[in-house]
Amino acid sequence: MRRQNLALVLGTVSAADADAPLSRADVAGRTGLTRAAVSSLVDELIADGLLVEAESAPSGRVGRPGRALAVSDRGPCGLGLEVGVTHLGACAVDLRGRARVWRRVERGNAGRPAGEVLAELAALGREAEVEAAALGLSVAGRVLAVPGVVSRATAALAHAEARADLAGVPDSAAAPHAAVERAANLGWEAMDPADHWPWPDAVPEVENEANLGALAELWAGRPAGAVGDTFVHVSAAVGIGAALVVDGRLFRGARGFAGELGHLPVHPEGPPCACGARGCLELYAGEAAVLREAALDPQGADPVTALAQRARAADPHTIDALTRAGRAIGLALTAAVDLVDPSALVLGGAYAELAEWLLPPMRAELAARVRVRPWDADGLRASALGRRGPLLGAGLLTVRRILTDPGARG
Amino acid sequence: MRRQNLALVLGTVSAADADAPLSRADVAGRTGLTRAAVSSLVDELIADGLLVEAESAPSGRVGRPGRALAVSDRGPCGLGLEVGVTHLGACAVDLRGRARVWRRVERGNAGRPAGEVLAELAALGREAEVEAAALGLSVAGRVLAVPGVVSRATAALAHAEARADLAGVPDSAAAPHAAVERAANLGWEAMDPADHWPWPDAVPEVENEANLGALAELWAGRPAGAVGDTFVHVSAAVGIGAALVVDGRLFRGARGFAGELGHLPVHPEGPPCACGARGCLELYAGEAAVLREAALDPQGADPVTALAQRARAADPHTIDALTRAGRAIGLALTAAVDLVDPSALVLGGAYAELAEWLLPPMRAELAARVRVRPWDADGLRASALGRRGPLLGAGLLTVRRILTDPGARG
Repeated sequence: MRRQNLALVLGTVSAADADAPLSRADVAGRTGLTRAAVSSLVDELIADGLLVEAESAPSGRVGRPGRALAVSDRGPCGLGLEVGVTHLGACAVDLRGRARVWRRVERGNAGRPAGEVLAELAALGREAEVEAAALGLSVAGRVLAVPGVVSRATAALAHAEARADLAGVPDSAAAPHAAVERAANLGWEAMDPADHWPWPDAVPEVENEANLGALAELWAGRPAGAVGDTFVHVSAAVGIGAALVVDGRLFRGARGFAGELGHLPVHPEGPPCACGARGCLELYAGEAAVLREAALDPQGADPVTALAQRARAADPHTIDALTRAGRAIGLALTAAVDLVDPSALVLGGAYAELAEWLLPPMRAELAARVRVRPWDADGLRASALGRRGPLLGAGLLTVRRILTDPGARG
Repeated sequence: MRRQNLALVLGTVSAADADAPLSRADVAGRTGLTRAAVSSLVDELIADGLLVEAESAPSGRVGRPGRALAVSDRGPCGLGLEVGVTHLGACAVDLRGRARVWRRVERGNAGRPAGEVLAELAALGREAEVEAAALGLSVAGRVLAVPGVVSRATAALAHAEARADLAGVPDSAAAPHAAVERAANLGWEAMDPADHWPWPDAVPEVENEANLGALAELWAGRPAGAVGDTFVHVSAAVGIGAALVVDGRLFRGARGFAGELGHLPVHPEGPPCACGARGCLELYAGEAAVLREAALDPQGADPVTALAQRARAADPHTIDALTRAGRAIGLALTAAVDLVDPSALVLGGAYAELAEWLLPPMRAELAARVRVRPWDADGLRASALGRRGPLLGAGLLTVRRILTDPGARG
């Protein structure tokens, strides 16, 4: 009970508007707990470094009793790590959900041995930890975003989540053996980070990058709440992934593979795909396909940035290529709307920067294809987080775990 | 608390093997409740007509104390009703889940006014109620299966279900205004049964037939538990519907439209569909398309039965038509596997009778298309309930509501 109440108090303080922070009395009023109980819980949360209490009363509320409570911007933080096809990333996210350390370096990771890539990433992560420590932040959890299929003890996980009712935050304890089943665009198969990470006590939990992008959208998307709590988040760049959020929870499916979008057959008799099937979405809308169709060689520059520049200059080949890609994504999302009935679709990842050219053909395709049930064109939007989503989500995951169950620590 | 315990006791008795019924002492042992508490709860359930207690000890268990408890096969029952494109149905299902009254009449309902169809169905339902009464059964709830898109207050429903934790049984109280948004194969739009039902106090709750077929599979499929608790159920005949069961609950999506399969684009540049889109699954696998491709005119006979007869006689046109239909369904289900990651796929409805010819091409298509994650060919099976599923599910829904929350009655 005390554990639940710790979460209730911390969550109440965390959810308050930063411009109108709460006092202990306010928290008692909002939670229905007694002031004595709130004070005891607040003292424990302060001692644990999760809450701070200002010296003076909440600003602009002169005359009201109590000092302003806030979630600490020191203390525990989440370390996010990312292996992309063309980059590595590390970040530290504080309990307020802000990325206080953010590092992203360009690296061609496709085809490189996992051990080599992860050693480099581990060093980058260690630098981020050192930088975070200088800000008074200590890493409470490490999560690694990977563009691949991640297998885990999903059924057990889903049930553990349902039992704990932790507001949909995946519980690391319930899925200790997550591993990459296949990351086609990296050329990885059966990659367990524990086999490669240089520090056995700091091995990150691996998670699909599209899932983490979707969680970032749920927790930090702007405007807040715009996507509702049942949406499909497309995470597109070199590969095209998707993730489903249902009732505010990540929907993983029976074995953790839900949300595969890149290999949906959009033109069943189309050309063969590297995966072994034919006419998969990535053949029409993946980065390589769009560059080829646009006759664009980015020559080392970021391909999505190069595409956006060309499109902004009204290059007809680029516009055509993006229109074709948008149509194909819209076609694949038709299946998602038909089957899952989300309240929103979000275009995230690097492709969010191409939204100006991708969203109109996506909307047109959905309007033409979704006919037997209502579909609102405004249900499709671009993510404001864009390519920052997966790494931010990797950092936020640890933070959300702490906020929803602070008593689980120590 | 007493309400939860009533459900616990009734559920425990209901879940016991019919060959090894439980005594009051057994129930106390299984539930952890005291014998005194169990006896009080059992007495209330007997008084409510939900449980019966045998005169003698459980058979084959001589020497053990206590008399056998069983869920009553008299008392409350669920009335199932169904409007199909070519038939009407009514059934009464007792608390043991057995259909005690079963009526199905062939009727061409396509294009007929809803009022006319529902008046006829109401009369059929009333006959079933009278027949049930003669068996000692009284109708506790009426549910109508319709092959169409049903709109309801879904978000509220989902939350009510989650709060009540009623093992995924949709709660009628949370969605009082269900109505048919569109039933294309009947030619109905915006049909509210309350506008047509002759008896205002006996208006049935309307539900999509594919959803009810899936629930029947979950609750009464054989072998029990074979499909797991996360599966996609295809309900195919004139139209092709689907329903998603996730963690033992019907997954409705944000607005109740989840599980649309018949209008998934399987060949995006294909011929125009009546829905307004192109290349929809029903154009390749719906009954009319298969009959045309098989050059078969059933001349008033049941089309699926006629197709099965021809296929059994190895008619090459029919085999080809079914192979083409199976491929198309497999292609559409590829999207379902990719996006939802079910543990099983079930072919239900009348097409279950064509499983011998449909399943092999469906399996082949799934094997060729689902490549980036594991997929087990045995994950696809035919329903043993077949075309009986939706009507049985309509009757079972009321029964499951009573079993999971007996205290809600009265």
